[in-house]
Amino acid sequence: MNDMSNMYIPTYDDVLAAHDRVRPYIHRTPVLTSTYFNDLTGAELFFKCENFQKAGAFKVRGASNAVFGLSDEMAARGVATHSSGNHALSLSYAAGRRGIKATVVMPRTAPEAKKAAVRGYGGEVLECEPSTAAREAMLEELVARTGADFVHPYNDHRVIAGQATCSKELYEEVEGLDTIVAPIGGGGMISGTCLTTQELSPNTKIIAAEPKNADDVYRSFHAGEMIEDDSPQTIADGLKVSLRPRTWHFVSNYVNDVLLATEEEIVDAMYLTWQRMKIVIEPSCAVPLAVILKNKEMFAGKRVGVIITGGNVDLKKLPWMQV
Amino acid sequence: MNDMSNMYIPTYDDVLAAHDRVRPYIHRTPVLTSTYFNDLTGAELFFKCENFQKAGAFKVRGASNAVFGLSDEMAARGVATHSSGNHALSLSYAAGRRGIKATVVMPRTAPEAKKAAVRGYGGEVLECEPSTAAREAMLEELVARTGADFVHPYNDHRVIAGQATCSKELYEEVEGLDTIVAPIGGGGMISGTCLTTQELSPNTKIIAAEPKNADDVYRSFHAGEMIEDDSPQTIADGLKVSLRPRTWHFVSNYVNDVLLATEEEIVDAMYLTWQRMKIVIEPSCAVPLAVILKNKEMFAGKRVGVIITGGNVDLKKLPWMQV
Repeated sequence: MNDMSNMYIPTYDDVLAAHDRVRPYIHRTPVLTSTYFNDLTGAELFFKCENFQKAGAFKVRGASNAVFGLSDEMAARGVATHSSGNHALSLSYAAGRRGIKATVVMPRTAPEAKKAAVRGYGGEVLECEPSTAAREAMLEELVARTGADFVHPYNDHRVIAGQATCSKELYEEVEGLDTIVAPIGGGGMISGTCLTTQELSPNTKIIAAEPKNADDVYRSFHAGEMIEDDSPQTIADGLKVSLRPRTWHFVSNYVNDVLLATEEEIVDAMYLTWQRMKIVIEPSCAVPLAVILKNKEMFAGKRVGVIITGGNVDLKKLPWMQV
Repeated sequence: MNDMSNMYIPTYDDVLAAHDRVRPYIHRTPVLTSTYFNDLTGAELFFKCENFQKAGAFKVRGASNAVFGLSDEMAARGVATHSSGNHALSLSYAAGRRGIKATVVMPRTAPEAKKAAVRGYGGEVLECEPSTAAREAMLEELVARTGADFVHPYNDHRVIAGQATCSKELYEEVEGLDTIVAPIGGGGMISGTCLTTQELSPNTKIIAAEPKNADDVYRSFHAGEMIEDDSPQTIADGLKVSLRPRTWHFVSNYVNDVLLATEEEIVDAMYLTWQRMKIVIEPSCAVPLAVILKNKEMFAGKRVGVIITGGNVDLKKLPWMQV
């Protein structure tokens, strides 16, 4: 649905506009530190805690920017997306705040809890067969029929500008970061981080942290061309999706390195974070800490920003119960 | 080991001195709010998050006040206590910071993880038979032999003055609280809260939240005399102990009400806190929220302080896995 030649790349001005637009609907989340993790890594870590964000994840920033940027006329036709994760919740939350309709296309095989959560925020769930073709067909039909605005989970300039407000807040609060580490799936958060780093802290290195089991970004980064994953399996369920043109633009131009973590390393880092920091984080956002613990020499002595992307996890099915 | 007639009751001056003394060794923990819980209760709740405290619980305040208040001569002989919970960890932590020895008497049947945690902070574990008589005999022998200073988990004026620094910080940060709710076991936290409330916010009502399965405070409060529990069983393992003379002094004179929660209500409140606030709390500190949810009409429209006492929990044995 996006064409490279006709692709608008957001700028820092878009980030400023996004922040003004979404501020009433999001939390300015806290930045936590941990003596334990500082001692363990030799680095000085600053955790930007989007697990405390509205709807439980940073995704509400991008979704709110898209929803509240619509004209009244467009808004009246509602918004739509496909997602079975945090973007679905966030779009439903933002649409609810604006008083418009959100429709989410989800595979019928998605967990009932996820469907219920979307409905809990006022969104409507349309179930499709569990295939990309079925999902895209249903979404296209929906958009054609209702005129709803399609808000892609990450390959959308409004979403990228919105996600950028997260690292903007971190740079505003913590000066002199040598490195910033964020998880990467489709690349929305990392793309926004590239935008703010260029503007606010150009000497900060940008590291994308990725599950080894879903290493399309790592492979793309080293190949110099966008390679898509084919249904990867990882506990970090928010990071299974692949890069798209807009996010590849940022990754290929501004990211300094891509580091990988195994499933076991991700679960260990997640467990340790719960145990020591007393915060509930989802597997996806344990990936940055996992790569830091694995590559201590790369981070020792440095001031490191870490994006904790979300805290939506099934408390009755925790990974250390299964591994 | 304490005699009513010879019992020093700490004052607010002791709290001020305690705060100056412990400040370098503790965190000033954040106060969190939750739109979800405000909507659910109709109250405005302010959660003082001691789960983020050093050693994972408020107990480090009292333990640090005792440890750092010792003369060098006394400190050289070390400190000792009996506890299989957060006080044991906290005393070990504080002693470690001062560079002195902490010895903790624990029943040999206590979980290995608890013994390991004390050792992890540098404390020594002495194992006794699992009875009150055995525990007290071993502690007395230890104190007689080494001259170590016995720091009772709550029936100690230094400990009470230290715990008071928690509600002091809350009152300094949040004005106009109508009510403050804290869990009660032995009564150290509540006693400290009485001290600060009298001085800083005398119109604030003090509510002690107690497990129904360990309701010695409820019964004492209504009988007008101290009644001890006999080995109560509750998921809120930090609240199994009974009042002692110093804490009964505060409960009988200053607490406005004692509210009870069942085991199921405690687990539900704990689960909901993890799920919605994304913080790891132990069962004991879910009791205040449980009584608020159970008695909404009593709290609706009010500004309510809630003490989240700690976050030390076995992540591999969560109560919603068992009930």
